[in-house]
Amino acid sequence: MIIVLKAGTAGREIAQVEEKIKSYGLTAHVSRGVERTIIGAIGDERKMQPEAFEGMECVEKVLRILKPYKIVSRDFQKEDTVVTVRGQRIGGGTVALFAGPCSVEGREMMLGIGEKVASSGASFLRGGAFKPRTSPYAFQGLGEEGLRCLAEAREATGLPVATELMDPRDIDLVGRYADVIQIGARNMQNFRLLTEVGRLDKPVILKRGMSATIMEWLMSAEYIASEGNRQIILCERGVRTFETATRNTFDVSAIPVLKSLSHLPVIADPSHATGKMSLVEPLAAAAIAAGADGVMVEVHHDPETALSDGPQSLRPEAFREMVGRLKGIAVAMGKKLGNA
Amino acid sequence: MIIVLKAGTAGREIAQVEEKIKSYGLTAHVSRGVERTIIGAIGDERKMQPEAFEGMECVEKVLRILKPYKIVSRDFQKEDTVVTVRGQRIGGGTVALFAGPCSVEGREMMLGIGEKVASSGASFLRGGAFKPRTSPYAFQGLGEEGLRCLAEAREATGLPVATELMDPRDIDLVGRYADVIQIGARNMQNFRLLTEVGRLDKPVILKRGMSATIMEWLMSAEYIASEGNRQIILCERGVRTFETATRNTFDVSAIPVLKSLSHLPVIADPSHATGKMSLVEPLAAAAIAAGADGVMVEVHHDPETALSDGPQSLRPEAFREMVGRLKGIAVAMGKKLGNA
Amino acid sequence: MIIVLKAGTAGREIAQVEEKIKSYGLTAHVSRGVERTIIGAIGDERKMQPEAFEGMECVEKVLRILKPYKIVSRDFQKEDTVVTVRGQRIGGGTVALFAGPCSVEGREMMLGIGEKVASSGASFLRGGAFKPRTSPYAFQGLGEEGLRCLAEAREATGLPVATELMDPRDIDLVGRYADVIQIGARNMQNFRLLTEVGRLDKPVILKRGMSATIMEWLMSAEYIASEGNRQIILCERGVRTFETATRNTFDVSAIPVLKSLSHLPVIADPSHATGKMSLVEPLAAAAIAAGADGVMVEVHHDPETALSDGPQSLRPEAFREMVGRLKGIAVAMGKKLGNA
Amino acid sequence: MIIVLKAGTAGREIAQVEEKIKSYGLTAHVSRGVERTIIGAIGDERKMQPEAFEGMECVEKVLRILKPYKIVSRDFQKEDTVVTVRGQRIGGGTVALFAGPCSVEGREMMLGIGEKVASSGASFLRGGAFKPRTSPYAFQGLGEEGLRCLAEAREATGLPVATELMDPRDIDLVGRYADVIQIGARNMQNFRLLTEVGRLDKPVILKRGMSATIMEWLMSAEYIASEGNRQIILCERGVRTFETATRNTFDVSAIPVLKSLSHLPVIADPSHATGKMSLVEPLAAAAIAAGADGVMVEVHHDPETALSDGPQSLRPEAFREMVGRLKGIAVAMGKKLGNA
Repeated sequence: MIIVLKAGTAGREIAQVEEKIKSYGLTAHVSRGVERTIIGAIGDERKMQPEAFEGMECVEKVLRILKPYKIVSRDFQKEDTVVTVRGQRIGGGTVALFAGPCSVEGREMMLGIGEKVASSGASFLRGGAFKPRTSPYAFQGLGEEGLRCLAEAREATGLPVATELMDPRDIDLVGRYADVIQIGARNMQNFRLLTEVGRLDKPVILKRGMSATIMEWLMSAEYIASEGNRQIILCERGVRTFETATRNTFDVSAIPVLKSLSHLPVIADPSHATGKMSLVEPLAAAAIAAGADGVMVEVHHDPETALSDGPQSLRPEAFREMVGRLKGIAVAMGKKLGNA
Repeated sequence: MIIVLKAGTAGREIAQVEEKIKSYGLTAHVSRGVERTIIGAIGDERKMQPEAFEGMECVEKVLRILKPYKIVSRDFQKEDTVVTVRGQRIGGGTVALFAGPCSVEGREMMLGIGEKVASSGASFLRGGAFKPRTSPYAFQGLGEEGLRCLAEAREATGLPVATELMDPRDIDLVGRYADVIQIGARNMQNFRLLTEVGRLDKPVILKRGMSATIMEWLMSAEYIASEGNRQIILCERGVRTFETATRNTFDVSAIPVLKSLSHLPVIADPSHATGKMSLVEPLAAAAIAAGADGVMVEVHHDPETALSDGPQSLRPEAFREMVGRLKGIAVAMGKKLGNA
Repeated sequence: MIIVLKAGTAGREIAQVEEKIKSYGLTAHVSRGVERTIIGAIGDERKMQPEAFEGMECVEKVLRILKPYKIVSRDFQKEDTVVTVRGQRIGGGTVALFAGPCSVEGREMMLGIGEKVASSGASFLRGGAFKPRTSPYAFQGLGEEGLRCLAEAREATGLPVATELMDPRDIDLVGRYADVIQIGARNMQNFRLLTEVGRLDKPVILKRGMSATIMEWLMSAEYIASEGNRQIILCERGVRTFETATRNTFDVSAIPVLKSLSHLPVIADPSHATGKMSLVEPLAAAAIAAGADGVMVEVHHDPETALSDGPQSLRPEAFREMVGRLKGIAVAMGKKLGNA
Repeated sequence: MIIVLKAGTAGREIAQVEEKIKSYGLTAHVSRGVERTIIGAIGDERKMQPEAFEGMECVEKVLRILKPYKIVSRDFQKEDTVVTVRGQRIGGGTVALFAGPCSVEGREMMLGIGEKVASSGASFLRGGAFKPRTSPYAFQGLGEEGLRCLAEAREATGLPVATELMDPRDIDLVGRYADVIQIGARNMQNFRLLTEVGRLDKPVILKRGMSATIMEWLMSAEYIASEGNRQIILCERGVRTFETATRNTFDVSAIPVLKSLSHLPVIADPSHATGKMSLVEPLAAAAIAAGADGVMVEVHHDPETALSDGPQSLRPEAFREMVGRLKGIAVAMGKKLGNA
């Protein structure tokens, strides 16, 4: 950690900063320049909060040298983490293909869509039983009934199922049915929920918060990893910007940035990122070309009557055609696309 | 709701849109222009989700006419909501003054700061017992012990106490000690938590999410109100932008915008908004001048050793001086500042 | 245009709005709902500014139905605009490949890099002679000398050259040397400059402003087109967001969004978007997969000594290898990559 | 400047970085930590561009210690710059009050509004003769005729006039009529224009770019100052964010931040910041309470027929009433408001 002092800081104050650094077990190294004195703290800076120094009168700014996350960093583990669930892989040369409806709306529907996407090459089924909705008056999901439909679709297709957990009180319930647990964008910094899924022995998809920096996102992954669970899959789903032509701005750069900072697999959700079905394919293609280890796509047999997210859902036939084209991109990248 | 159709939409498709509008119990009014056909849906548009139409092939865009929130809107209740707790007011001509440490760090500390801010004019005490921290390795709060310290400080000062609730599993515990429950920025869209506090008979401070629009914020307030609890206080604490000179960008305009859209009281948290103690006073003054019903300020007896948020905390003496100056602004606005 | 009136607007005020609509030559259609009265203005709404109505006391909001741009819209011209310069194409099945240094630093350098990128498959040379720099103390470009170097490189390679114009006073000078004129992000709304290049008979690359919406960007293209010049190429180069891991956030969705709203070709600049050489290839691949008609890449023989933008420049050998891989993506998209 | 090297950087590469630092005339100081080696460059870091090092393979990141601007910084000049024009002050205890129409629409109109705002306490007149408009089809200003009207209004009222310059080719023309030259938000990084006004002996209002950081803004001021002109007034007018309830998000924190980093006066434009007349007064009050040295307000005798920016313009009577209330805030801040 580098601590830059204000111009004209007295020796007595410099000594206080040095003392404080030592109190954390680090070594202080003072360097007096013409315009500024700077102090380097040598040792494991993760033991100190920058705030501890920013609060001092004489401090102009504090610069971190090390990354604040550890277990999830590429420095900690060189080789890529590959997650395998019921024989389906995420990473390691396979672009996983998650598909299914936004919300599970019933047994028939889930089985119907499940079989269609499975036959088109999907490698995971998705579907929400508990739905975070902006409006208290909107459909909130089928709850346990939805989870049961997912489990039936798993039996029918043989594919693992992923579904969202919103409340720590539901962890046993959701854990009983799901193969992969999803933490939604709005809960990326619900630290209690992160701690709970960190204690499970089940893969967790951690979606990026609407305005989370990549560093904060990795810190949330660190919350999970620090409890023991290292089967974490990061999912880019767009960030909030000033642009209104799309619901969110899909941050495609986050994919290669994460691959360089962390060993965790990274997938993309082009459906939520844009909110428009016509943009799903170009963004899924872009994500694969940028190095993603998976894509998650919403599919609905009748988007016009969907209880949630209809405008961004593909019909099963459109999904099948898209898979054909995305496969070409995956092959150009030297990879396999789901079971396609 | 206005539904704009794509150029060249056929009569058959127009009829489908009309049918769909009628199925929600509204009336469709078709208007054919030179370049576009538009369809107005007459009736209570809150019964329909725009998505239901955006998913249709022939639809270019859907424009809402009405606001999606209801109970919290100024249309629903013309007169200002004024919240009174143990004789202290928020709104109705009083600028409430919340003060105290970011985290409760112990009994002595909480009592000491509590008495000092009370004697300087604070009308509410604040202090965190459960702390949402970006890093799993940072101090997470004293938990119930912290709540007990807050209760003691209330006894000693006579002032009501406000503290944060992070987990629905803690609602009974926090409810036993707190006079006002705070929902933090990261939980603004933790809908399960909102539903739970909506069932309490206790005022709730709802902080704005880091990148929440004013509309989403009011929708979260509607979640609480729709469960019955209408003692809701909105708290602006800065939003995330590209600017890095301050931790967040304090959206002072949100204050008058909210006062016009809603009857709920609005307070400001200049400490979290900026992350710098030197900016707390100018922003608190700006908030009061813009019409805020309260300000919440972090005070610590020794910011340099604070376990959290030291850099933005004022010392008790600095707080006392600031109160003197802010009082002048409140008086210029025709208002009273806390107990100052 | 739809004008939504405030609740409780009187008949007299409604009549004033109707009068005003008629004064623009449009027809007013009043529709009284339970909660709101709305007035539709039927006719060419481009004749009216929404502001003219937003200023009225009784108006709650004004909603546009039509797009404010015309010549550049897909409605105006169904088929794609393909730009051809000295035999090289942008669009129409060819992904143009622009390559060269950020700044022209001298004759040798420009010729050296020019020949290398040409032999690797580039179809256009790029290089800045006039450089917009944040600091007045930084290198500002070689000016006319730089333009002469570009012209020599064109002679040597046979490839057309693209360079930036910053000042309307330089238009004749830059026009004498350049085949394609580039308007930088900071000048996207320099309306005088847009008007001037609109009068040229030369293709113009219009970069997206740092925080320009897609609509504003198309309005700037409309400025150029409205003066007569329709050889406009839109260039996505990232937008400003809260994320600091990359210099800008590359908005890959803008590519398919623009292709649907406009007939103009769209290219991408992954070098400026990210500021990091390691991200250039993944973003170039993503742009091509999302449908871009070209990519623009900075190449420098020695990035460590570059006078500007070294960190994001590729070495010629790295460029050659990248072209090989990008070609695979272009082929998967059914397209040709530059002269590769 | 601090240069952080990647883990595992070899001695040979470290030596190269040291060499490079020395080539700029600075001294290198190498510090080997457990996880990272860092190199401090001691001396005037403004001579080096961080990019020169970011381009090196072994460099992880480069941290600036010093501010990149100099003449405009508070370090360079401790005491506040106070600008005085024709006896009217900006700063030094006076909150300047700029008022007038967005666009000059004619002689009568300018004289009428000029006299009304002068009699209400305005200390400067404003009015646009050259207007930057998003649409090529919108009113672009009266040009020289508008400037003549401004000059007449100056004669009639005795107040200095401020108007916008958009094109370096108009500098003599605008300079002949204006007392204060305004550089609009879209031109904040039009570096050629900045250089030209830097050579004038006339105060310049430099508006903040729509997404400019405070550091970039000060760098643009440095462009002007480095040419000799130090009569620079910074004007906050809102930045672009995700929020759509207001046209821009007024960054009130920028006022105290600038006052601490720079000696230049800072004013606020609440009209452009919000785009809504009902928000002008609360934001003007907030700006004054936060320490602004002036406010700029749009006034129009008939906002409903204004050729530009009607929705955010106040009527002269509303302006007069607002001035009365703002005076109370200025007095509470120990200051004088214009000529009120």
